[in-house]
Amino acid sequence: MKHLLDIGHLGAAQIHHLLDLTDHMVEINQRPMPKVPALRGKTVVNLFFEDSTRTRTSFDTAARRLSADVMNFAVSSSSVNKGESLRDTIETITAMGVDAFVVRHASSGAPQQITKWTTASIVNAGDGWHQHPTQALLDCYTIRTRLGRTTGFDGLHIAIVGDIAHSRVARSNVQAFTALGARVTLVAPPTLLPADITGWPVAVSHHLDALIGEADVVYLLRMQRERMRDALVPSLREYTTLYGLTPARAARLQPHALVMHPGPMNRGVEMAVDPAELPGSTVLHQVTNGVAVRMAVLFELLGSGSEMTTDAVATAGTPETGTRS
Amino acid sequence: MKHLLDIGHLGAAQIHHLLDLTDHMVEINQRPMPKVPALRGKTVVNLFFEDSTRTRTSFDTAARRLSADVMNFAVSSSSVNKGESLRDTIETITAMGVDAFVVRHASSGAPQQITKWTTASIVNAGDGWHQHPTQALLDCYTIRTRLGRTTGFDGLHIAIVGDIAHSRVARSNVQAFTALGARVTLVAPPTLLPADITGWPVAVSHHLDALIGEADVVYLLRMQRERMRDALVPSLREYTTLYGLTPARAARLQPHALVMHPGPMNRGVEMAVDPAELPGSTVLHQVTNGVAVRMAVLFELLGSGSEMTTDAVATAGTPETGTRS
Amino acid sequence: MKHLLDIGHLGAAQIHHLLDLTDHMVEINQRPMPKVPALRGKTVVNLFFEDSTRTRTSFDTAARRLSADVMNFAVSSSSVNKGESLRDTIETITAMGVDAFVVRHASSGAPQQITKWTTASIVNAGDGWHQHPTQALLDCYTIRTRLGRTTGFDGLHIAIVGDIAHSRVARSNVQAFTALGARVTLVAPPTLLPADITGWPVAVSHHLDALIGEADVVYLLRMQRERMRDALVPSLREYTTLYGLTPARAARLQPHALVMHPGPMNRGVEMAVDPAELPGSTVLHQVTNGVAVRMAVLFELLGSGSEMTTDAVATAGTPETGTRS
Repeated sequence: MKHLLDIGHLGAAQIHHLLDLTDHMVEINQRPMPKVPALRGKTVVNLFFEDSTRTRTSFDTAARRLSADVMNFAVSSSSVNKGESLRDTIETITAMGVDAFVVRHASSGAPQQITKWTTASIVNAGDGWHQHPTQALLDCYTIRTRLGRTTGFDGLHIAIVGDIAHSRVARSNVQAFTALGARVTLVAPPTLLPADITGWPVAVSHHLDALIGEADVVYLLRMQRERMRDALVPSLREYTTLYGLTPARAARLQPHALVMHPGPMNRGVEMAVDPAELPGSTVLHQVTNGVAVRMAVLFELLGSGSEMTTDAVATAGTPETGTRS
Repeated sequence: MKHLLDIGHLGAAQIHHLLDLTDHMVEINQRPMPKVPALRGKTVVNLFFEDSTRTRTSFDTAARRLSADVMNFAVSSSSVNKGESLRDTIETITAMGVDAFVVRHASSGAPQQITKWTTASIVNAGDGWHQHPTQALLDCYTIRTRLGRTTGFDGLHIAIVGDIAHSRVARSNVQAFTALGARVTLVAPPTLLPADITGWPVAVSHHLDALIGEADVVYLLRMQRERMRDALVPSLREYTTLYGLTPARAARLQPHALVMHPGPMNRGVEMAVDPAELPGSTVLHQVTNGVAVRMAVLFELLGSGSEMTTDAVATAGTPETGTRS
Repeated sequence: MKHLLDIGHLGAAQIHHLLDLTDHMVEINQRPMPKVPALRGKTVVNLFFEDSTRTRTSFDTAARRLSADVMNFAVSSSSVNKGESLRDTIETITAMGVDAFVVRHASSGAPQQITKWTTASIVNAGDGWHQHPTQALLDCYTIRTRLGRTTGFDGLHIAIVGDIAHSRVARSNVQAFTALGARVTLVAPPTLLPADITGWPVAVSHHLDALIGEADVVYLLRMQRERMRDALVPSLREYTTLYGLTPARAARLQPHALVMHPGPMNRGVEMAVDPAELPGSTVLHQVTNGVAVRMAVLFELLGSGSEMTTDAVATAGTPETGTRS
């Protein structure tokens, strides 16, 4: 694996491999000193053309725990503003000696484009409405651990609820969940379904109430206020009435069912209950698993080629100060 | 000690303990390689809702010298702007694995509130007009070392001069100085005294000239320009005439008297002499001691529970490269 | 060497010494783990009063590869905005314990001024139209390695083309190139030549075509759009016609000739060919060499005084994890 651009490029075997590697990273993160020298001397550049403190911090934490050096580029302060082309910016940073770019960009395909201009690895941290592959991996890892599904998602029914059309999270998760064997139903008003929905390996429903008592996982998407402005949704209140997780709907969830959300939540809109009161809520587990999954991805991309192997993480993972005696 | 929220929560014994620990940190900072592995693998998040390069940099330096990882959050780029609640932001960052938040916030009590939402330690780096406990500790440490007062401040007379009403520094320092045994006089015009002053364990004066020749410490507060706008002070010139440290007043200081200021100074206003010409000025010593005090606080909060103890700092403090041979 | 303020302060011997040291740093940068402990425990502060992601990142990378701690100050968030004087800001940061400031400032002479207020070393990272000494060093290193000129530039003819008047790069490079023995011709319209040009040890030409087939190095300067606004240049198109590297001019270059640019390029203006198609282009080598040269400068300023010597870099440069066994 040289890049992680699109979860659809990975087969089930590769996803399982990354989730197995994540198990090691979770173990590292539970140590008193959650830091290993696996990527010492490597440089990871966070190149965020859209602001996302949450995702950037997760990658930042992941890289530091593997002892990589991290540099953060906000686009507002970069030469791109001086009229330098994106290509020249990428080539320049590459020439300084960079091992990976973590790219967030408003345009679908930008991370793919960037691979042509650099020898460094590219991790897509969200491009337009297209892909957010590490989100899909952390969601799979969360389901796998919370529901004990180490070998796959056969027989699981996952409902993804909300603004599918404008969601890279939905696109990526449909691919990952179905690759692992789950059955996926998209639940949304017709205005929030993508135009090309007929080609997707999913069922579609406009009625959350018909599914809420039956799904093993209810995945709520963030409702963006600009959908109101664009008249795709009549009002936040009506959205909540039809598609929000209200107390009435929460009461109908199966005892083992998970409630997931990529964050940040709109409390009172799609999340109309307090997730802290919901036994099946995975909101904070997703955040915690996000760091471990990103450690696994960075290690997979940058750690091989060295003498380190997946097996070696456990031992190489001896805390650094453990070498002092 | 789990948090440092309010200097008033500490007794004299705890303050002395932290100042003793600061002695170790000062020794570390004087080494050719001022860095020890005491907090390796720990993550400290600077969460500054008000801008303060000075305080943030001091904490940043302190954390790095103990080998902690540091992440800086400016509120302008955080999800709080996307409408995410402060609680969700704190819970999310906590879920990524954070050991301490250093919080600066415009609202009194915000750091206390945050303790309810996280398992991490909280250090109050200034909340509204309420508290700034590490400032009080560094000021105590500066007095202790400059005046040789290792066992307490009995018999010392400290004058705090200026805008007491709007100053968390004044509030915190009154508590710390009196806890250690000092006699404190607040010197200010009536408009700049707090409404609840009668309950404070201090004397009050409106005449700096009556005290200037007698005080052991003259602590000047920063005069904010907005006090003029709010008509609490007639003019900067008049403020200086009545309450500034002018050359005439500086000439009347006792030979051993200290002149302190939390910075940044308004030269020509409250500081109407060049502190570089003043033998008793502690302005830059306060800055230097600030790093050491914050190292002591972070070590006290995060270093215990490990095999490290206060005594162990001296030996564990062996420079990292000392392990190479 | 305590500071690096002005390339004109260095003689040929000192420049050669820094370029020899750069050879060691290049070797370090080519290792699988390009990181050495040479400056562990040292703190470098990037103090950029003008935005320059490119230069700041280069210094940042250089400092991290030597294991120094790096702190970035953007002026917009510093106390200078609160009305604190530059002097107080410098003294305050110094008091926290800083070993070097890397300073970019719009005013000529600001880095020199700062040396009076701090015990730390100052590296001038560009001041007004005055000096950019590390740019000159990286350009010398690029010529030395690409043209095999280890002992000097005797007999080389270097043409510097464009806006000489407003260019600290041109000023610094004229001094460095001539100190090493090169013959320099400045090529520019009269409006873009400095007023004091008669005192410079250079030839002047207004005709690039007369020189293009003869120069060993063609150094293109960035054309700033504000020169159009100030009516110093009639139009970008005319500038390109007279002074740009067009395909016709590129075809007339000598086979061994280098084409250099400090970046960021204006493609289609001064660089009217694709440098990737130009065998003599050094644009990306300059960026790569910039990191190594800045490592050499930081090591020269901060690494001596320790037991490390120039010779010791090679051995002390053993990757950090190499000490684990």
